[in-house]
Amino acid sequence: MAMPSPSYTITLRVEAPATQRATSEIVHEIATAGGSVMGVDIAQSHADTIVVDVTCDTVDAEHGERIVAALDALDGVRVLKMSDSTFLMHLGGKISVTPKVPLKTRRDLSRAYTPGVARVCLAIADRPEDARRLTIKRNTVAVVTDGTAVLGLGDIGPQAAMPVMEGKAALFKQFADVDAWPLALDTTDTEEIIRTVKAIAPGFGGVNLEDISAPRCFEIEKRLREELDIPVFHDDQHGTAIVVLAALINALKVVNKKIGDVRIAVSGVGAAGSAIIRLLLAQGARDIIGFDRHGALTPESAAGDENRTWIVESTNPSGFTGTLKEGLVGADVFVGVSAGNILVGADVATMADGAIVFALANPTPEVDPIAAGETAAVVATGRSDYPNQINNVLAFPGLFRGLLDAGATQITDEMLRVAAVAISSVVSEDELNPAFIIPGVFDHRVAEAVADAVRAEGLKEVAVAEQRAEDAEHLAPHLGRVLHADAAAVAR
Amino acid sequence: MAMPSPSYTITLRVEAPATQRATSEIVHEIATAGGSVMGVDIAQSHADTIVVDVTCDTVDAEHGERIVAALDALDGVRVLKMSDSTFLMHLGGKISVTPKVPLKTRRDLSRAYTPGVARVCLAIADRPEDARRLTIKRNTVAVVTDGTAVLGLGDIGPQAAMPVMEGKAALFKQFADVDAWPLALDTTDTEEIIRTVKAIAPGFGGVNLEDISAPRCFEIEKRLREELDIPVFHDDQHGTAIVVLAALINALKVVNKKIGDVRIAVSGVGAAGSAIIRLLLAQGARDIIGFDRHGALTPESAAGDENRTWIVESTNPSGFTGTLKEGLVGADVFVGVSAGNILVGADVATMADGAIVFALANPTPEVDPIAAGETAAVVATGRSDYPNQINNVLAFPGLFRGLLDAGATQITDEMLRVAAVAISSVVSEDELNPAFIIPGVFDHRVAEAVADAVRAEGLKEVAVAEQRAEDAEHLAPHLGRVLHADAAAVAR
Repeated sequence: MAMPSPSYTITLRVEAPATQRATSEIVHEIATAGGSVMGVDIAQSHADTIVVDVTCDTVDAEHGERIVAALDALDGVRVLKMSDSTFLMHLGGKISVTPKVPLKTRRDLSRAYTPGVARVCLAIADRPEDARRLTIKRNTVAVVTDGTAVLGLGDIGPQAAMPVMEGKAALFKQFADVDAWPLALDTTDTEEIIRTVKAIAPGFGGVNLEDISAPRCFEIEKRLREELDIPVFHDDQHGTAIVVLAALINALKVVNKKIGDVRIAVSGVGAAGSAIIRLLLAQGARDIIGFDRHGALTPESAAGDENRTWIVESTNPSGFTGTLKEGLVGADVFVGVSAGNILVGADVATMADGAIVFALANPTPEVDPIAAGETAAVVATGRSDYPNQINNVLAFPGLFRGLLDAGATQITDEMLRVAAVAISSVVSEDELNPAFIIPGVFDHRVAEAVADAVRAEGLKEVAVAEQRAEDAEHLAPHLGRVLHADAAAVAR
Repeated sequence: MAMPSPSYTITLRVEAPATQRATSEIVHEIATAGGSVMGVDIAQSHADTIVVDVTCDTVDAEHGERIVAALDALDGVRVLKMSDSTFLMHLGGKISVTPKVPLKTRRDLSRAYTPGVARVCLAIADRPEDARRLTIKRNTVAVVTDGTAVLGLGDIGPQAAMPVMEGKAALFKQFADVDAWPLALDTTDTEEIIRTVKAIAPGFGGVNLEDISAPRCFEIEKRLREELDIPVFHDDQHGTAIVVLAALINALKVVNKKIGDVRIAVSGVGAAGSAIIRLLLAQGARDIIGFDRHGALTPESAAGDENRTWIVESTNPSGFTGTLKEGLVGADVFVGVSAGNILVGADVATMADGAIVFALANPTPEVDPIAAGETAAVVATGRSDYPNQINNVLAFPGLFRGLLDAGATQITDEMLRVAAVAISSVVSEDELNPAFIIPGVFDHRVAEAVADAVRAEGLKEVAVAEQRAEDAEHLAPHLGRVLHADAAAVAR
């Protein structure tokens, strides 16, 4: 049975008799109707009546209606108003723009804006590299979508995608102090998206592509990586891949196996599946088989699809053919990024001892995690109501923090890999167990660890590091020039 | 002689003997060298020496060097470090993104992001009009440039334009609580710019075009107005026109003339000039003559240029031909948006009694304002160091506040006109005089007055108003539905 959830929280304004019993009766009635009361506030008190605001989690909209009806049926009780917390939270959007400089006086204005700003503009015109120091570029990421593959909702269009993109921008700030701005594009044409992102790129230090459907997302990411000098990252592919690898590293520790020795069945060879396969290979996996709904990919089933052809050429060294269920027999790891309920517990039971099952389809996993857990040693899902949630929030904030700090001009597979290792390393030996292979999304150590790892990897791009040193020297006269070298120790 | 300015503020870290005299000697020496000391802070104190941070305004970079040399020449004094306040203020950029919702707990995440956000996305997919309520769209403006006409600097490119666009975004927030995001485009192609702005439009409630060179700016604005359902405003044209009209309304009160009776010479028929002419006509001006560097526009000199042809057809009813200086004879009003020092005081002396001179070329006005003031009754410039500064900051924040509040889908000439009237009305009869025809940029009444006027005008778009009423009804179940109509008075 579905449980009440904070994503369906309602607040009811209820008028009731001014008696001791009334409030407890209301709370009791909501609980009986299956709601979960989170709080009761007295809004008004009169001689004979009180008005209380009751906040409670419900299962869905219909459940809310049933609770209202149940309360209305109580003697002397009337529900005056019902509001939905999730919608209230979205009123007016979830992010805003904040000036970082004071603009209260003429002095402020003449430095932050005209006429003083002209000198800063000229400095950048003279040396475009200085844009990273003197503008928001060095801390700013564009979150770009065309609204074609939003959550599990599919092609709902750019305006309807905005709440997700705004949420993403808010998470970027909250978890890694990255300034991200959502751009929901009114086009689904591959070339038009590429052109648009290239056109808006000068003010950004990175691009996070989001919820763009396959196969266009592959071409868009590939071309933008080639044609832009800032990192471009498709979160649905690589964010998921990073967290899957992080979880797998720890799950393999739990079952005491090595990644080079295990057989891994990956169900789903779209955006996420192919990125996962690529990253598992980078970490040393050798025996991966990719499955679509018809079974293991073969040269024939992959023909004409660049992405699938790459998978066929890079995986399945034993040449397995057959269905997913057949392929699961004796496999060590199952990674599902496909569709809900395509497997049952009995399928998982055919896997090798110490089986690892990542059933990541949302909201319904490939296999019921309870059933899978009867024989598998480790189970993870994409859901927050089971242990071991594979959540991209663990990856993208810290990843971009590191990229921006390093002034990185591109993203390498090695950066993705070290990000995964960093996430896995946050779980200590003491903490590690089958129900805790991946840190929680609110563990602040995660973004820091990822940022540190990616920053270090990014700075290995020697050219960038050298460029930055040169930049620093060039700007020194403006930003604070040490005029007497021997006095450097005295000057702060 | 140029005066020290806050846009050239430097901070010097100076080591000096630990004596009473040392600091006053330093301040005295800077004053003697022409700098204007704003503050002195002791940074370090030792037995024999002190280290002080002296902040002072200078004329330019070379002046700063001279001050350093003068201090270094003092006995026992060494300048350890010099920093430039304007550059320091720009380090890392001038705006940031702030989440408006808490994201600290799983409950927060499940409402602002997954899974709760999915319901909000679906609500917008179902009714795209709800985007203005449930996303940032209703308070968000794109500040778009291609970097081709930045301040007086010309085509310095998109990255170098960013400090101006960030400043603009900061001003939008500071003056009218509008969330504006800068987009500096890596293209100067008219069609490409149009395509890009259309592509990014879904997440924005308005577009502020900025510093795009003529004649492309005309076509870009015109096409975007036709093809988008949100207001599109080219500030260099219409922002300037609004503030010029506001100033002229009050200047005419000072000289006791009516706009329908005066002859107005407009020097400069580019982006700003043509918008000024259009708005003056809307306010009732009848005798306007447009001049380029060759003299009054004629059908021949305008041939092939759509914008100039429109001016020729709409102005100069008396068919004047000749130079600007010739046209100035007997004219009541001069509006210059052209080039510095093209007139002298003697030219202004040939104008009618009670002449009004707006010499807005930046940084050097068309005529020296002191010389013009010898015969003109009212003089205004674009500069902050003379009275009556014509500054776009008076217009754009309040204008967009009103447009967004009204949910306006377009900008009409009447909206621009009422914005100008609103600015002029902030100057009361008591305050009005030749040196105060326009309010100061930090007068908070301005943005409010402009927003009120534009909002009222915007809401006259009946269809929009009706749509909004319908929206409100539709969303009511989510946002707070009154369940007992008779109880509406009880419910807050």
